[in-house]
Amino acid sequence: MEEFTKAIDASSKKWIDTLAETVAIKSVSADPVCRPECIRMMEWAKTEILRLGGYADLHPIGDQTMPGGQVVPLPPILLGGFGKDPKKKTVCVYGHLDVQPAEKEDGWDTDPWNLTEVDGKLYGRGSTDDKAPVLAWLWVVEVYQQLGRELPVNVKICLEGMEESGSEGLDEFLFKNTEWFKDVDFTCISDNYWLGPRKPCVTYGLRGMAYFVVTVKCAKKDLHSGVFGGSVHEAMHDMCKLLASLNKDDGSIAVPGVMDTVRPFPAEEQKLYESIDFDPEEFRTECGAPNALRFPDKKGVLSHWWRFPSLSVHGIEGAWSGAGGKTVIPKEVKGKFSIRLVPDQKPEEQEKHVKAHLESVFKNLKSPNTMTVEMINGAPAWLSDPSDPNYMAARRAIEKVFGVAPDLTREGGSIPVTNTFQEVTKKSVMLLPIGGSDDGAHSQNEKINRENYINGAKVLGMYLEEIAAAGSA
Amino acid sequence: MEEFTKAIDASSKKWIDTLAETVAIKSVSADPVCRPECIRMMEWAKTEILRLGGYADLHPIGDQTMPGGQVVPLPPILLGGFGKDPKKKTVCVYGHLDVQPAEKEDGWDTDPWNLTEVDGKLYGRGSTDDKAPVLAWLWVVEVYQQLGRELPVNVKICLEGMEESGSEGLDEFLFKNTEWFKDVDFTCISDNYWLGPRKPCVTYGLRGMAYFVVTVKCAKKDLHSGVFGGSVHEAMHDMCKLLASLNKDDGSIAVPGVMDTVRPFPAEEQKLYESIDFDPEEFRTECGAPNALRFPDKKGVLSHWWRFPSLSVHGIEGAWSGAGGKTVIPKEVKGKFSIRLVPDQKPEEQEKHVKAHLESVFKNLKSPNTMTVEMINGAPAWLSDPSDPNYMAARRAIEKVFGVAPDLTREGGSIPVTNTFQEVTKKSVMLLPIGGSDDGAHSQNEKINRENYINGAKVLGMYLEEIAAAGSA
Ligand SMILES: [Zn+2]
Ligand SMILES: [Zn+2]
Ligand SMILES: [Zn+2]
Ligand SMILES: [Zn+2]
Repeated sequence: MEEFTKAIDASSKKWIDTLAETVAIKSVSADPVCRPECIRMMEWAKTEILRLGGYADLHPIGDQTMPGGQVVPLPPILLGGFGKDPKKKTVCVYGHLDVQPAEKEDGWDTDPWNLTEVDGKLYGRGSTDDKAPVLAWLWVVEVYQQLGRELPVNVKICLEGMEESGSEGLDEFLFKNTEWFKDVDFTCISDNYWLGPRKPCVTYGLRGMAYFVVTVKCAKKDLHSGVFGGSVHEAMHDMCKLLASLNKDDGSIAVPGVMDTVRPFPAEEQKLYESIDFDPEEFRTECGAPNALRFPDKKGVLSHWWRFPSLSVHGIEGAWSGAGGKTVIPKEVKGKFSIRLVPDQKPEEQEKHVKAHLESVFKNLKSPNTMTVEMINGAPAWLSDPSDPNYMAARRAIEKVFGVAPDLTREGGSIPVTNTFQEVTKKSVMLLPIGGSDDGAHSQNEKINRENYINGAKVLGMYLEEIAAAGSA
Repeated sequence: MEEFTKAIDASSKKWIDTLAETVAIKSVSADPVCRPECIRMMEWAKTEILRLGGYADLHPIGDQTMPGGQVVPLPPILLGGFGKDPKKKTVCVYGHLDVQPAEKEDGWDTDPWNLTEVDGKLYGRGSTDDKAPVLAWLWVVEVYQQLGRELPVNVKICLEGMEESGSEGLDEFLFKNTEWFKDVDFTCISDNYWLGPRKPCVTYGLRGMAYFVVTVKCAKKDLHSGVFGGSVHEAMHDMCKLLASLNKDDGSIAVPGVMDTVRPFPAEEQKLYESIDFDPEEFRTECGAPNALRFPDKKGVLSHWWRFPSLSVHGIEGAWSGAGGKTVIPKEVKGKFSIRLVPDQKPEEQEKHVKAHLESVFKNLKSPNTMTVEMINGAPAWLSDPSDPNYMAARRAIEKVFGVAPDLTREGGSIPVTNTFQEVTKKSVMLLPIGGSDDGAHSQNEKINRENYINGAKVLGMYLEEIAAAGSA
C-alpha cells in the first residue's frame, strides 16, 4: 500500500500534464462545431488504453439531428478494459469525456481550455466533470505496471462522449450489449461530488423524477384582453387553480396518494444523519435563501433533500414571460412541474395519482376549456446497500487513504446512467466521487483540487485491492 | 349636401392616389431606420395643409433612446388648422401618421408599401390605421374650396408620428400647450373601427386598465430542484396560490372591493344592446373559442367586453417558459395580471384593493418568502355622453350618408390619447371610426374599403356641417 501511494505521488506531475492535455480538447457535446473534438477525445482514450496494454473498441452509435436540423455523428462509445482472468473479479467503471460549454467571457478567471493551477486548485472545463476521474483509473493502471504488479481484478471500462447532452444513444447501445457486461461483478461510477468540500463520501441513493406537463387550451389564437377579457373563460385562470392545487400552503405535496408509499423514517435511520459532515448554515448561504428553508436543521435539510419526495412548479409555457406588461390572453398554456421520487414510488403510479388529482380539480372548476396531462419523463429512485461488499471495499479504501470513515450519502437529483448500469449488470452499483462539492462542475471556474485528484487515484487503486481481498461478490 | 357628396365622389381617384403616396412613405415608428420617413411624413402633412391654405407648425419634442442605446430624434408634432373665425365653433381633430411594421414576407398578399386595390379594397400598411382617416379631413377641406364654400367651423389639427410606439412625448407636449387648445369646442378622433364590417358606429366609451406585477422571492439564485426541492419553500408555490386567488372558478373577479364600484346594469341599459348589429357567432369564430365564452348571447358578450371589468392573468416572468422540461426552482418570479376598469373604478383604488387582497392571501400562506405588489400602469375608463351635441352631430351625419342610424358602441381596450384630449380640452371627445372591423390594422393585409374611405370623407364633412348647425356647444 505504501509503495502504491508513493508511486501515485511520484507520477502526479505526469498525470496533471495529461489532464491538461485532455482539458485542451474542447469536447463540448452540446456544440455541433465541437463534435470532431468529442470524437477525438474518445479516440485519445482508446489510444491511451491500448498504450497501457488494455483492449478497447470504439462503437459508432449513429447520427444526431441538432435542433437546427443539422445532422452530426454521435461520438462513439468506448468499451475496453484490462485483464480477462476468469479467476479474478470484474469491476466495471463508467465515465464520460464530453464537457459543458465554456467561454472565457462567461466569467472565467482563466482560459477554460488551459488547465491552470492556482493555490493547489486545477482550473479548467472538464477538470472535475469528468476527465480527472476517468484519468485517475488509467493512472492506477499505469502505476500497477510501473510497480510490476498485476491488477488485482479485471477492469472493464465504458466511456461515452454525450453525457452532458442527455447520454443520447447510450441506453439503447448498452441494452443491446448486455452480453458484454455479463461477467461484471461490481460497478463503480465516479461522476458526482462529495457532500462538502473536505470530507470524502460514497453515495448509495438518488431520487427519481416524474416530470409533468398540464395543458389547458381556451382558444385557437392568443387574444387581446381589451376585447376578450371578461368574455372568454381564460386558460390561465384554470392553470393557476390547477398549479395551486399541487402543494399545500407549507410547500408539502397535496396530490392524494403520492405520499402513501413513502417509507417511514424510523429513529435509527434518523440517527444516521447525525454523524454526517454537513453544515446547514453553509447550505443556507449557498442557496441564498436564509428564510426559505423549510426544515433548517441538519436532519431536516438532508432528509428532505435525499429521502422525501418533493414537488416543484417550474413555470408556464405559452404565457407572457418577458419583461414589462403585455396584455395577452394566452390561447394555450402548459404548466410544468416535477416530483422528485424516492424508493417505492413508481413513476407510473405517480402519473396515475397526478392525473386523477388534476382531473378532479379541473372537473370541480366546471371550466369550458380542455385540459390534458402528460408525464414527459419518469425515472425511479435508486437505492443501494452501503454495507454490501462493493461499498465496504470503497469505505475501507477511503479510510486507508484519508484516515477517516467516509460519509454515506444520497443525492436529491437523478444520474440516469446509474439506473442503466443497475439494470444492465444486475449487480451492485456504487457512486464513488473524488471531487469536492465546491468544484463548480457546469459553472465558471470549474476546478479539481490537486489533492483530490491524487487522493482520488489512490482511493480507486485501493478500492480495486479491497474488492479483490473481499469474499466473493 | 348633394353637391358636397358628389364632389367627394368626383375627387375620389385623386385622394386614393394621395393615400397611395402616403402609404409609400415607410413611417414605421418602431424602426429607427425608418425614423427619417416618419419625419418626412410629418413634413408631407405640413406642406399639404399649407397648400390647402391652412396653417401648420412642426414642433420638435426631443430625442428617443432606443432599446439598443441608439438615440434618434422623435418625429415632431404637427399643430395646424383651417380658419380662426371667433364666431365659429372650433373642432379639434387628432390623427397619427406613423404605422406598424410590415414585411411582404410576414404573409402579405401584396407589397405593403404599394397601395393595391383588389375588389374594392385598398390594401397597404397604414391604409386604415391611420392614414386614410387623416387624409379624409384634408379631402373635406379641399372639396369645400373647390365648391367655393367656407368651412362651417374652425378646424384645429393635431397629428403625431409615434402613436404605434406609445405616443412617446405627446402627453408631455400637449399638457405644456393646453393654451393652444383653449378655444376647442369639440374633439373628434378617427382612429378606431366599426364593431362589424358593415354598419357604421360612434364610440363613446373605453375601459381603463390597471396592470399589476406581484413579485415573490425565495433565494438569491435559481436553484436545482434535485438539490433544493423539498428543502426550500419555493417562490412558485406562493405565486400559484396568489394568482389562483384573483379569480373565482367561473372566471369572475375574486379581489374584494373591485366589483363594489361597478355601476348597476338596469333594464333600460340592457335594452340598448338589443339593437346593436353584432353577431355573437362571428365573435366566437373570430376568437376560436367556441366553448370558452362565459355569456354567449349578444348582451352577455358586449356588456362584458365594454361595461364590466375583467381580470386577466398574463403570465409569469422568471419562471421556466421554454419548451421541454427544465428542473429549475426559480429564485424570483413576477406574476403579471391586469384589470380592465370601467367608469367609477379609479386605478388608485383598485391598487389598494389588489394590494390588500394579495397581502392577506400571502399572510395566510405563512410563507417565509418576500412578496411585493406594484401597479405598473393605471389609466381610468373613459365614458362620454352619446347624446351630447358633438355625438348628435356625428349621428345625424352618419344617418344622412348611410341612411341608417349608427350603433352606439364602446370598446374594451384603452386608447390613451382619448383620455389625454379629454383632460387637455375639458370638452366633449368623440371617437368616430370610418374603417370596418375586418380592416386588419396591425395585421398582414391591412386594408380600407374604397367605399369606407369615400363615405368616411362624406361623414366627416357632414359632421362639420352638423356641428355648425347645432346650438352652441
Ligand atoms: Zn459528469
Ligand atoms: Zn456534468
Ligand atoms: Zn391607430
Ligand atoms: Zn394602430
